[in-house]
Amino acid sequence: MKQILMMSSSRKGTQGFLAHADDQVHAVLSDRVKSVLFIPYAGGITFSYDEYEARVKPTFDRLGYALESIHHHKDARAAVEQAQAVVVGGGNTFVLLDRMYNAGIVGLLRERVNAGMPYVGWSAGANVVCPTIRTTNDMPIVEPPTLKALNLIPFQVNPHFISGKPAGHNGESREERLAEYLAINPDERVVAIPEGTALHVQGENATVLGEFDAVHFKQGGVVDKLATGGTFALTSI
Amino acid sequence: MKQILMMSSSRKGTQGFLAHADDQVHAVLSDRVKSVLFIPYAGGITFSYDEYEARVKPTFDRLGYALESIHHHKDARAAVEQAQAVVVGGGNTFVLLDRMYNAGIVGLLRERVNAGMPYVGWSAGANVVCPTIRTTNDMPIVEPPTLKALNLIPFQVNPHFISGKPAGHNGESREERLAEYLAINPDERVVAIPEGTALHVQGENATVLGEFDAVHFKQGGVVDKLATGGTFALTSI
Repeated sequence: MKQILMMSSSRKGTQGFLAHADDQVHAVLSDRVKSVLFIPYAGGITFSYDEYEARVKPTFDRLGYALESIHHHKDARAAVEQAQAVVVGGGNTFVLLDRMYNAGIVGLLRERVNAGMPYVGWSAGANVVCPTIRTTNDMPIVEPPTLKALNLIPFQVNPHFISGKPAGHNGESREERLAEYLAINPDERVVAIPEGTALHVQGENATVLGEFDAVHFKQGGVVDKLATGGTFALTSI
Repeated sequence: MKQILMMSSSRKGTQGFLAHADDQVHAVLSDRVKSVLFIPYAGGITFSYDEYEARVKPTFDRLGYALESIHHHKDARAAVEQAQAVVVGGGNTFVLLDRMYNAGIVGLLRERVNAGMPYVGWSAGANVVCPTIRTTNDMPIVEPPTLKALNLIPFQVNPHFISGKPAGHNGESREERLAEYLAINPDERVVAIPEGTALHVQGENATVLGEFDAVHFKQGGVVDKLATGGTFALTSI
């Protein structure tokens, strides 16, 4: 059964790295998983993959999962083939997707996660689970071969969701951006997840985890709350 | 001589639509221009092209320029060929570029502006002047055939520049995004323009217009002010 944890962010408010997420990670990885393969491709831009791994590893050590980054493997595809579970970190979504295509692991990851390999991702690592990365908040600092992504769920997710906009600034609010998204893509659907909130996909259903509700953006500016603790069918979105 | 006005935004603070920009627009269009062709492609997503035109037209009427939108022309290429000047409005940069490619006007606009047809753009309309749109702040709600844009200047511009990030939110600051941009694109350069500020390109030079300085982001986190009122060579960036 498909097991995916899509976290909005690695931090909630002023809490430490993944400090809010212990129960969320355990819920997805379960007792069967002893080691996880870390995919640091969204980072490693202004710091190294080694540094990114060193930042993430203590959290997974504490939770009882040995973590190793894919950049230590000569053959990225073989690493994904042999992984018990994957953990995909945040950073820049365009860079993540571009490097996943360069490593040749997009189709393989899709197959393995569809076949039941647990997947944990936050921020950019949650965005690439969607059909495309067209609901990312990130700057397109590189141009991937396509914006099509893992397509493991049938709707788009917007991580780091925050309502409104800073006073005195004339960029669009997130709500305006997502309303434009749905106006120009009338057959698509979007679930926005505030920082600290996650979606736990199990097979054909998803449960909202965390303190805050998720927000379901529909056509015509209609917005529904998806209450935390609640479960919905992926196809109901 | 190339004449381009790249405005950060259509509004400055709480001022009305283009209210800050009278002198900036006059400086570029000059007495020779009597009518301008409006390109509304970045908007017209949650409202119509007619509405967008109606919002922009009074400003150009007041300044003495007749404005007509390209969507009234059956042949978009002929409209660009015959235009005295073009005005490219803001909205979503990905949608703007995608629609410009669909209309077949990217190469033609480049030729005409390089040959001296004045170009006025704000926000998305400023972003597409650059080599690519990879320094936009917008959500990639559509996927254009390429992120390569008009390439009328040799560096990237980041409009709506604002320093820092909202308290309690863990997305990247604009400075962090641009530092990542330069880290992964070491041969490129970025000029960020705060709301209310514009670059006036004349031939091979540009002048900073408006109340606030522009900000020149260089490799390694080095940042220089480009003082308002000052002129620099495009190739010095």
